[in-house]
Amino acid sequence: MSKTLRIDVWSDIACPWCYVGKRRLEAALAGFAHRDEVEVVWRSFELDPSAPKVQPGPADYAGRLARKYGTTVAKADEMIRTMTATAARDGLTMRFDRAQPGNTFDAHRLLHLARARGLQDAVKERFFRAYMTDGEAIGDVETLTRLALEAGLDRDEVAAALAGDAWADAVRDDEGEARANNIRGVPFFVFDGRYAVSGAHPAESLAKVLAQAWSERAPAVADGEVCGPEGCA
Amino acid sequence: MSKTLRIDVWSDIACPWCYVGKRRLEAALAGFAHRDEVEVVWRSFELDPSAPKVQPGPADYAGRLARKYGTTVAKADEMIRTMTATAARDGLTMRFDRAQPGNTFDAHRLLHLARARGLQDAVKERFFRAYMTDGEAIGDVETLTRLALEAGLDRDEVAAALAGDAWADAVRDDEGEARANNIRGVPFFVFDGRYAVSGAHPAESLAKVLAQAWSERAPAVADGEVCGPEGCA
Repeated sequence: MSKTLRIDVWSDIACPWCYVGKRRLEAALAGFAHRDEVEVVWRSFELDPSAPKVQPGPADYAGRLARKYGTTVAKADEMIRTMTATAARDGLTMRFDRAQPGNTFDAHRLLHLARARGLQDAVKERFFRAYMTDGEAIGDVETLTRLALEAGLDRDEVAAALAGDAWADAVRDDEGEARANNIRGVPFFVFDGRYAVSGAHPAESLAKVLAQAWSERAPAVADGEVCGPEGCA
Repeated sequence: MSKTLRIDVWSDIACPWCYVGKRRLEAALAGFAHRDEVEVVWRSFELDPSAPKVQPGPADYAGRLARKYGTTVAKADEMIRTMTATAARDGLTMRFDRAQPGNTFDAHRLLHLARARGLQDAVKERFFRAYMTDGEAIGDVETLTRLALEAGLDRDEVAAALAGDAWADAVRDDEGEARANNIRGVPFFVFDGRYAVSGAHPAESLAKVLAQAWSERAPAVADGEVCGPEGCA
């Protein structure tokens, strides 16, 4: 019965496919006639909750990848090249050579603040670019503050949020809902609370699911015998 | 993504078709394999918010009906006989000869308390029977209290609620949502927030909508490229 169609997207910042998924969702929405009646909500998901807030210097991304997958650095380099090329086709510049690993919990807290202020998309985009393109330390308080202000958030609100544990419950609620729904990887899209899409599908695929969810959105009212203010029909 | 399917039903107590609609919904649910995964929520709707709490003596129902529809008492009597016969086929005894008009706002407040206590269906049923069958004064505080206790509510909680304005906002919220959704007559069923059925349709029709809503309930997960704790696929 709601007037808008809602798309929930679970994602992390330190997540190449999530950034690609955001671009593909935007492409799907750009071609959708009812764009203005769609609400996108970015939900929290941490790929590595135990990551330290900041790690000094740029990550040896290929080395980490090689260890993670139990492969050679050469193979890992090839994976990175493939990912970078894929992202480029979606208009994104991914600079794994300077990406800095870090903890994204505080970034997710700010994304909840941003949602409350109607700025979630701008902040999400700024964080993605900071991490994937600009090599920014996404878990560093000063860096986060600067990025959040650039995206339009209020300095005092950001400072107050980062100084305390504001929105921490909201992050954990998102993550709890992800677990409850067996979401193990991101991005994970849920259209209208019903159609789930796991992973960065092509824009055309997302557009199809969007159209399907939209087509079922309008309540189909069947009329029968009722009582109204003027009596019973 | 929710585990249960929810059915919201806007209805009033002083509403013959609402009582019939409840029986038909129950019949639809009785034949539904996933009955235990369905939640029915009774939402507030007042057909006559300006009605006095209590009117002395049994209503001249036929006379009121004749005036309402601008017809003769004989015609009104015929309408009553038809409604009574229809209700009887659904297993309900409707005694319009002793029905007492009254204001249902307090009854709706108690229905919200009942929902919070997991007793909403029992209280709703008791109120319907009181009004439609037993000729009870549904707006009378002592009567409401007795009925609510019979249905399992706590004496002190009921007394406290009726003495103040507890749950009044919840009643008005329901009615506001009804207005926002252009609901003008009751019963009005909404399955899973999407399929709307206005009026007391046959159980078979309600069962079909229920099956349809259920079939679309399970998220259809499509798998694509994701990042997980172990890396990006």
